[in-house]
Amino acid sequence: MSMPDAESPVSESPVSESPVSAAPVSTSRDPAKGPDTAAAPIDARLLPPNHDIDASGALRIGGVSVQELAEVYGTPLFIYDEEGIRQRARAFAQWFGARNVTYASKAFACRAMVELVDEEGLSLDVSTGGELDMALRAGFDPARIVLHGNNKSDAEIMTALAAGVGLVVVDSFDEIDRLVRHARSVGTIPAVLVRVNPGVEAHTHDYITTGLADSKFGFGYQNGQASLACEAVSRSNDLHLAGIHAHIGSQVFALDSFARSAEVLVELAADLDRFTEHEMSVLDLGGGLGVNYHAGDDAPSIDRYGTTTVDAFNAALRGGADHGLLGDIRLMIEPGRSLVAPCAITVYRVGTIKDIPGIVRYIAVDGGMSDNLRPSLYQADYEVFDPTRVAAPRPERATIAGKHCEQGDLIVKNAAVPADVSIGDLVATAVTGAYGYSMASNYNKVPRPAVVFVRDGEHRLVIRRETFDDLARLDC
Amino acid sequence: MSMPDAESPVSESPVSESPVSAAPVSTSRDPAKGPDTAAAPIDARLLPPNHDIDASGALRIGGVSVQELAEVYGTPLFIYDEEGIRQRARAFAQWFGARNVTYASKAFACRAMVELVDEEGLSLDVSTGGELDMALRAGFDPARIVLHGNNKSDAEIMTALAAGVGLVVVDSFDEIDRLVRHARSVGTIPAVLVRVNPGVEAHTHDYITTGLADSKFGFGYQNGQASLACEAVSRSNDLHLAGIHAHIGSQVFALDSFARSAEVLVELAADLDRFTEHEMSVLDLGGGLGVNYHAGDDAPSIDRYGTTTVDAFNAALRGGADHGLLGDIRLMIEPGRSLVAPCAITVYRVGTIKDIPGIVRYIAVDGGMSDNLRPSLYQADYEVFDPTRVAAPRPERATIAGKHCEQGDLIVKNAAVPADVSIGDLVATAVTGAYGYSMASNYNKVPRPAVVFVRDGEHRLVIRRETFDDLARLDC
Repeated sequence: MSMPDAESPVSESPVSESPVSAAPVSTSRDPAKGPDTAAAPIDARLLPPNHDIDASGALRIGGVSVQELAEVYGTPLFIYDEEGIRQRARAFAQWFGARNVTYASKAFACRAMVELVDEEGLSLDVSTGGELDMALRAGFDPARIVLHGNNKSDAEIMTALAAGVGLVVVDSFDEIDRLVRHARSVGTIPAVLVRVNPGVEAHTHDYITTGLADSKFGFGYQNGQASLACEAVSRSNDLHLAGIHAHIGSQVFALDSFARSAEVLVELAADLDRFTEHEMSVLDLGGGLGVNYHAGDDAPSIDRYGTTTVDAFNAALRGGADHGLLGDIRLMIEPGRSLVAPCAITVYRVGTIKDIPGIVRYIAVDGGMSDNLRPSLYQADYEVFDPTRVAAPRPERATIAGKHCEQGDLIVKNAAVPADVSIGDLVATAVTGAYGYSMASNYNKVPRPAVVFVRDGEHRLVIRRETFDDLARLDC
Repeated sequence: MSMPDAESPVSESPVSESPVSAAPVSTSRDPAKGPDTAAAPIDARLLPPNHDIDASGALRIGGVSVQELAEVYGTPLFIYDEEGIRQRARAFAQWFGARNVTYASKAFACRAMVELVDEEGLSLDVSTGGELDMALRAGFDPARIVLHGNNKSDAEIMTALAAGVGLVVVDSFDEIDRLVRHARSVGTIPAVLVRVNPGVEAHTHDYITTGLADSKFGFGYQNGQASLACEAVSRSNDLHLAGIHAHIGSQVFALDSFARSAEVLVELAADLDRFTEHEMSVLDLGGGLGVNYHAGDDAPSIDRYGTTTVDAFNAALRGGADHGLLGDIRLMIEPGRSLVAPCAITVYRVGTIKDIPGIVRYIAVDGGMSDNLRPSLYQADYEVFDPTRVAAPRPERATIAGKHCEQGDLIVKNAAVPADVSIGDLVATAVTGAYGYSMASNYNKVPRPAVVFVRDGEHRLVIRRETFDDLARLDC
C-alpha cells in the first residue's frame, strides 16, 4: 500500500511498504491525572521490588530480562517478582506474626502462589469451594486456612470442616445454623470469627467499600445484629467463638482509617464479648492496604501500616480498663492486593497503531479486558512503559487498547508513553499483580495469558497459557 | 440457634431451629427504575419466546420445566430457548436474507450455537483467533465467516485467509499492508470491507458507543482516512474491495438512528466509491439493535427494525441519481445481543438471606459477577423472578447478591421480588442470553455454569459445568 498524502497521519508499521512517520499527537495533560509527569520515565517505585535495568536500558525482574521472558513464554504475560512477594510477606509478618497475616487468595491464586504462602508461614483466606480446593490440593496446612464467604454452600462448609480449617468467618444467622448442623455431622467444634460491619468510613471507591451498614457481608454492629450473632455462636456447644472480623475497605491510603479501625475493633470486641463467655482471642482487621498505581500515589508502606495499626491496637487494648478482654489477643490482617499487586507487571506486544488526528493515538496490544478488567470495571488507571527502554522519557500520549471487539476495551486511556512506540514493540503495565489474572475471562474466546515467577535469575511457568483446545473443551 | 429477640429481624431459613419470619422490607420505589411495576409479576415479554406456564404456575421453556432443568443440571444454569433463537434468526433473515445476517459471536458462542447459526444459513462474525477456531472446529462454512478485529494478529489473518473466510473487515492502514502480504503468501484475493466511523450518534451508553470519531475501530470518514483506506484496498491487486462497514453502537433503541445510519452508509459508500473502481457491492450496517431488559423498555421489534432499515436503505439507494453505486448492493447486518439475549434466563439457587433493617434485604445466590458481569461493568439492570411461580406478584424489594468476596458483586440492586423468597428457592434473571456466559470468569475460583439448549420438550447440555479439576488444570 502506498500513502498518497503524507499529511494524512497513518499508523507506523515496520512492515509497511512505504512507512510514513506518524504525525505527532497531542501531549496535553489530562488534569484528572494529577501532577504532570508526562515526560518522565516510569517511577521505579512502580516496578517490582527486585528489578534492575541492564546496560542497554532494559528491565530485568529477579535478574531475568523481561524481553527474554516475553520471547520464551509469549505475550500477554504476567511476570511476578517471587522474591518481592516473599519480602512483602515477611514485612507484614514482622509486625503481625506470619500466622496472623492471612493472604486473600482472591487477589491472585494458583498452586505456586499457595505454596509460597505456605512456605512463608502465612495463613490463607479462601472464600469459595474453588479456592478451598486449590489450597487443599497444594497441601496447604488447613489449620492456617480462614474460610470466608457471604454465601457459603453446605458443600463448602462440610468440606472445610472435614479438612479442619482453622477459622470460619460467619456471615449470616442462617450460616450459624448450618455451621452447627455440619459441625455436629463432621464431629468437630470449629473456631469461628463473627464478621462485623463496624461503620467505619474507609475513603475509597464505592464499589470496594465495605464495613458500612449497607453491605452484603457480615452483621451490623449498630443495629445489634453483631451482638446477637456473637451471643448465638458463644452459646452453641458446637462452635467456638474465637473472635470477630471487620474489613473496612480496599485500596485504602488513609492510615488513620486503619488506626481508627483497630481501635473500633477493640471497642467492638470488648462490647460484644459481654454477650459471650469472654472467650475472644482473635481480632481480624481484614485487608485493604492500598498500593501505588501511579507516580503521584503515596500509599503507606507496610512498615507504616504495621506500626500504625499495631500501635493503635495495643493502645486500645491497654487504654480501656473495662475492656474485659482476655489478655492474649491475636491481631490478624488479610492483605491481598498489597502483598502481590506491586510485584508483577503485564507485558503485551503492540499489534496496531492508529492515529486519529487531533483526537488520540490508539496503540492496540494483544490482550485487553480479558486479562485486566479493572480499567473497565473500576475505571482503574495504570502506567505504561516499554520494558526494553524502561528509563526512557515518555513525552507522548496514547490510549492503550485491547484486542476485544468492544470500544470499552481500553487498558489505559491517555497514557504517557515513550516516543515512537512501534508495531512489534513490547509495552507493559505496572502493578498488575492483583485482580488481573484472577478476574480474567475468555471474552471473545481469547485464551488467558501465561504467568511466570522469577527469582534469583531463574524463571518458571506457574500458570500455563490457555490454548484453543482449552477453550473448546467445555463444548458438548 | 435460638433467636432471643423476635423484634430483631433475621434471615429466613428453612433449616433454622426456630425460624422467625423476616421483617418486611421497604418496597419504596427506586425512581431510576421507570414506571412502578413493583407489585406486578415479571412481564411475559421478558421471558424466552417459547415459554409457557404450567398448571402449578411454574415456568417451562421449550416445553421443559425450568425447575426440572435446575435439578438435572444444577445451578447456576443458563437456559436457552433454542427455537426462540431460530425464530429470531428467521425474522432477521426475512428482511435482509439469511446470508446477510451475520451473528456477532462475541455475544454468546459455543459449538452448538455456531452449528445453529450454520443451520439457519446466517453468516458468522468472528473477531479473534479463538472465535475463528471455534467456527472452523464446528465446521462452519468459511465463506460465510466475517473476520473482524481492531488488532488482528498475523496468525489470525493467515488462518482466516487459508480457511477462505468470506469477508475481512479491515480496521487500520497497517492491517491493509499485512493483509496484502498474507494474501500473496496464501495465494488468495480476500474480499474486504473497510470499517468506517460515520459519526452517527446512537443514543446509548458511552462504553458501548462506537461509530463516533474517537473509536479504536475503523477509519474516520470526516478526517479523510476512510477514503484513503478504500482507495488503498481498491488499488491493490491482492485485495478485492467488497464494500464498507459501519457499526453505530450497541443496545440502540432509536429506530431513526438505524434509518439515518442506513442513509449515511449509502452516502458514504457513494462518496467513497469515487476513490475506487465503483466495485462496492456490500454495505454492512453492523449490529446494535437493543432488547428489552425491563418491563418499561420498548425496544423495536425485529420487524420494525427490518422495515425501517431496509426502507431507508432502499430509499437512499434510489434517491441519489449521482450515487454511482452498482445496482446490486447487499445490505448486511450483525446482530449479536438482539439475536440471543431475549432467549435465555439464568437460574440461581438462594443460599443466604440477610435483612439489614431499614436499609435492604440481601438475597445471596450461588453465582454472581463471574457469570454476569454486566451489572458491575455497565450498571446493567435485570428483572428477577421465581421460576416456580412466574406469575406471582413481586411486592417486595431485595438486592440479589452474588457469592463473590466483593461488595460490588450484586446481580440486581433493589429488585422487585415475590413475597417470602426463602433459602433453597430458585430465582432467575431474565434476558441473560448475551454477554453473560461470554464474559464469564473464574473469579474467586468459581467454576463457570452449565448452559443448556431446550427445544420441543427436549433439553441438551451445550456447555458443561466447570469442575475444580478444570480450575486446577492450568497450574504448573
